[in-house]
Amino acid sequence: MSKIAVIIDNYFEDSEYTEPVNAFREKGHEIVHVGLKEGTTVKGKKQQTPVTIDQSVNKVKAADFDALLIPGGYSPDQLRAHESAVSFTREFMEKDKPVFSICHAPQLLITADVIQGRTLTGWTSIVQDIKNAGGKFIDKSVVVDGNLVTSRNPGDLPDFIQTSLEKLT
Amino acid sequence: MSKIAVIIDNYFEDSEYTEPVNAFREKGHEIVHVGLKEGTTVKGKKQQTPVTIDQSVNKVKAADFDALLIPGGYSPDQLRAHESAVSFTREFMEKDKPVFSICHAPQLLITADVIQGRTLTGWTSIVQDIKNAGGKFIDKSVVVDGNLVTSRNPGDLPDFIQTSLEKLT
Repeated sequence: MSKIAVIIDNYFEDSEYTEPVNAFREKGHEIVHVGLKEGTTVKGKKQQTPVTIDQSVNKVKAADFDALLIPGGYSPDQLRAHESAVSFTREFMEKDKPVFSICHAPQLLITADVIQGRTLTGWTSIVQDIKNAGGKFIDKSVVVDGNLVTSRNPGDLPDFIQTSLEKLT
Repeated sequence: MSKIAVIIDNYFEDSEYTEPVNAFREKGHEIVHVGLKEGTTVKGKKQQTPVTIDQSVNKVKAADFDALLIPGGYSPDQLRAHESAVSFTREFMEKDKPVFSICHAPQLLITADVIQGRTLTGWTSIVQDIKNAGGKFIDKSVVVDGNLVTSRNPGDLPDFIQTSLEKLT
């Protein structure tokens, strides 16, 4: 079973957190909520789903986990303004550990400067940012490039979840 | 006096709309709220300031206005997913009309592909996107590059407003 870090902050897209996390837990995987400050509660953008942060991002490292889930919404924009969140994300990519990115999540990957030459998808509004960062954008429900699994929006969740589960051992 | 288009959608940063607009009106300038759908009301991210859209962006052109204000928050992210909002913004830059951009507003300029070689500032989270788009990022309260006036955040509003007013006739 895998130990999965979910990096998350306010304004996340509720279903892009709840659905993958429920599916991962159903299969027996462990979820750890990593955020800016341990013990605080962050909330989703639409349904205000509350999530309590288990560990501060500046106290953890990728080596402590087997995979990373980055839900979308405006959470990635909040996180990418903090170097600790950016470097934590970068470590997963550098260590070739599974990274599950949906919707606006590539924003965090762009600030971490890890998508040059990678093939991925993401939400419509950030297509130009993905291309400018050297990523090859594909308009598909799920795109796999090595350790990186990406999807575009909540409508892609079934494909995103199934493909992500295949990366977990 | 100038006729200023304010391009705006939900989740705008309240003060980055209210303060410039109040200052422009005090000086006698005319404000037209341009958005995705005429007659709808969009709301700010923090104080839920209501703004009624005067004109749909697909029914107007830059030639109808003297200047463009792009408030920040998550409004630019919503707008940049729509080609009509992107092309409207691009027209102001191509026609060298004053463009006032604060916080996340450069996101709309990036999708419009108009910041290559330009000098500008913006909110921390989008610095990498600005650089990847070919912009020269400067960390200053207000940056002027020809027709383009940019600021970083609500704390820069006094400088942003004063400098923007100097561009209006």
